Amino acid sequence: MKVLVIGGDGFCGWPTALYLSDQGHDVIVADNLSRRTIDAELGIESLTPIRSMEERVAAWKEITGRTIGFVHLDVAEEYDRLLEIFRTDTPDAVVHFGEQRAAPYSMRSDTTKRYTVDNNVRGTHNVLAAIVEAGKDIALVHLGTMGVYGYGWSGSAPIPEGYLTVKVPTPDGDLEREILHPANPGSVYHLTKTLDQLLFAFYAANDQIRITDLHQGIVWGTQTDQTALDERLINRFDYDGDYGTVLNRFLMQAAIGHPLTVHGTGGQTRAFIHIRDTVRCIEIALTNPPAAGDKVMVFNQVTETYRVRDLAELISGLTGVEVANLPNPRREAAENELNVSRDRFVALGLNATTLSEGLLSECRDIAQKYRDRADTTKIIARSVWRKGMETSPDLVK
Amino acid sequence: MKVLVIGGDGFCGWPTALYLSDQGHDVIVADNLSRRTIDAELGIESLTPIRSMEERVAAWKEITGRTIGFVHLDVAEEYDRLLEIFRTDTPDAVVHFGEQRAAPYSMRSDTTKRYTVDNNVRGTHNVLAAIVEAGKDIALVHLGTMGVYGYGWSGSAPIPEGYLTVKVPTPDGDLEREILHPANPGSVYHLTKTLDQLLFAFYAANDQIRITDLHQGIVWGTQTDQTALDERLINRFDYDGDYGTVLNRFLMQAAIGHPLTVHGTGGQTRAFIHIRDTVRCIEIALTNPPAAGDKVMVFNQVTETYRVRDLAELISGLTGVEVANLPNPRREAAENELNVSRDRFVALGLNATTLSEGLLSECRDIAQKYRDRADTTKIIARSVWRKGMETSPDLVK
Repeated sequence: MKVLVIGGDGFCGWPTALYLSDQGHDVIVADNLSRRTIDAELGIESLTPIRSMEERVAAWKEITGRTIGFVHLDVAEEYDRLLEIFRTDTPDAVVHFGEQRAAPYSMRSDTTKRYTVDNNVRGTHNVLAAIVEAGKDIALVHLGTMGVYGYGWSGSAPIPEGYLTVKVPTPDGDLEREILHPANPGSVYHLTKTLDQLLFAFYAANDQIRITDLHQGIVWGTQTDQTALDERLINRFDYDGDYGTVLNRFLMQAAIGHPLTVHGTGGQTRAFIHIRDTVRCIEIALTNPPAAGDKVMVFNQVTETYRVRDLAELISGLTGVEVANLPNPRREAAENELNVSRDRFVALGLNATTLSEGLLSECRDIAQKYRDRADTTKIIARSVWRKGMETSPDLVK
Repeated sequence: MKVLVIGGDGFCGWPTALYLSDQGHDVIVADNLSRRTIDAELGIESLTPIRSMEERVAAWKEITGRTIGFVHLDVAEEYDRLLEIFRTDTPDAVVHFGEQRAAPYSMRSDTTKRYTVDNNVRGTHNVLAAIVEAGKDIALVHLGTMGVYGYGWSGSAPIPEGYLTVKVPTPDGDLEREILHPANPGSVYHLTKTLDQLLFAFYAANDQIRITDLHQGIVWGTQTDQTALDERLINRFDYDGDYGTVLNRFLMQAAIGHPLTVHGTGGQTRAFIHIRDTVRCIEIALTNPPAAGDKVMVFNQVTETYRVRDLAELISGLTGVEVANLPNPRREAAENELNVSRDRFVALGLNATTLSEGLLSECRDIAQKYRDRADTTKIIARSVWRKGMETSPDLVK
């Protein structure tokens, strides 16, 4: 299968590109390298020493003999070039990771709010419009987020995979209707993924584009079998307050002896997935697309749920590093339960990687190895949901 | 009240600006003049000879002594200037008409689809981000559309004003939840208004912006008491296949002896409102805003519903002009019922203007007066929802 991976330089995109190539697919990466430019803007770097895309794909070729194409392309800004790729390269499918993906960054300032909306909505819509204009049957797999559903909205019912059957009262009695799960986004970033959903629903119906939306949990881990083959293939590891994901941040903090930063009570329950499962899920989605004319196919791409403070206590118990309870810069419920349906990937053969001491220590070893690259002034989360919200000072010098 | 009217040069915006000024409000219009540039792009002109904004506001000043400010501003592209207006002019409220508003134009090509999404989403989001950044309590009134709800979705239940109470099945029994009415947009244009709804819901909750969304029906008529004062104040009259609204098109067609263009069976039932009521509704919404922290207040801004073929037969009966049944370039149900809740504006004192022979002939007289300005090659609707859909040739030479 020929696959265009938009955003294939990023934390999920790069290991996905390698995995798909390893599985024998013909992979082209399109990326505007925005994570690298945002790193520069924030004055941070991946904890791991990631290489340029040119060096990455050359190393992959050298090690495996397989070719991954790379196009430096901004799908939000360069529609005509994107359309030309669809017309001339005619991929069978597109995997679309090309969105600004950090909730804290999306709340950082009016500039980052606007960038997140403009980049994400415009990019997604350009992909859809270009598929229609190219007139080719190109399936689309998009990375959504569990955050579209909100937390606790459904009471004791598990969060369904995309759609909810509700009863609508009418003068003639209740009417059963299947609806897209109501949107309850917790940040401008999550908001853009709820906008994407409406774009997808329209284009699936009007233009019969085959679309799969993957509502992913919080990704943890760094390496996959492919990125671990050579240091030149290493995946990025974000630990800063905007882009670092919670479990990876705890593992990195443990590795450098920094208190584990829990915001608020830590009672937030969230869904998780290891990066090794992310890449498998993408391939399962690619090889099981909906038919033309079908509604958007939605998967919940998660394997486990944990309460944040339980994760902190687990890592603290393993490493002896203390937990620090800091002010919460987000507007969110202090505590929530979370029960997520994830039957579809299981039915399609996903043998889930669960949180294990081995995987935790693998990740901590990576953090340990590159600990000298850490900038401890970038660890505390300081992007606040409303101006004036309290944040913590740095905990270590 | 100091009011910034974004899109105050357009078909609804200009009469609203005049009405608000006439009612004693302090009005500033911000407009990028996009309707005029799109007219140029499509090779058409308003049937009525509209004047430049400079001449319009000068005439208004001359006739009434009242001042309307005008800023040539693109809110989608010139965020910093918009923010500066919020900071220095500190309007009490913004009325946001600044969106591409024609469904057919939004489906015309990949360029117009992309323009509609980029302009509308970016513009709305810029307004929201700028209100937050300015740190002022500026209420927002936005023009939505009845098209966000879809037609026939609710069975025999009337379409509610924005929100729907549904029952969600859970293991502990049905859970009652109030949700935003599910989105069922029929075009890229309507789609953008469903995206706006999610933007509003987020910013009302996170930043406590006071927002009112007006889901307006199809507007007809041309003149209000204010635009009729002087020919230099005349409102635009669109009759072309992209921007003309159905009843105004019938009235113009009758005036020039062109067959009345019904697409499909004409069984589509739609909601209507006269332009005189549009302007009144806007003022009612401005003077009855939600409180900070409230959810978005939604009104259905409609006064009557009609089936398209019934309107065609009515005008045909009044004028003797025949009805032509043409292929439908849209993807929509051939026939639908429509039952709309509109209690809120009635409760707030709207004394609705209903379709009357007097108002119909007033509008037809305007069309008659300017009939020599009509370009009959622009009457047939030719923007199709999917490539290859059939359209009609011109009916008159």
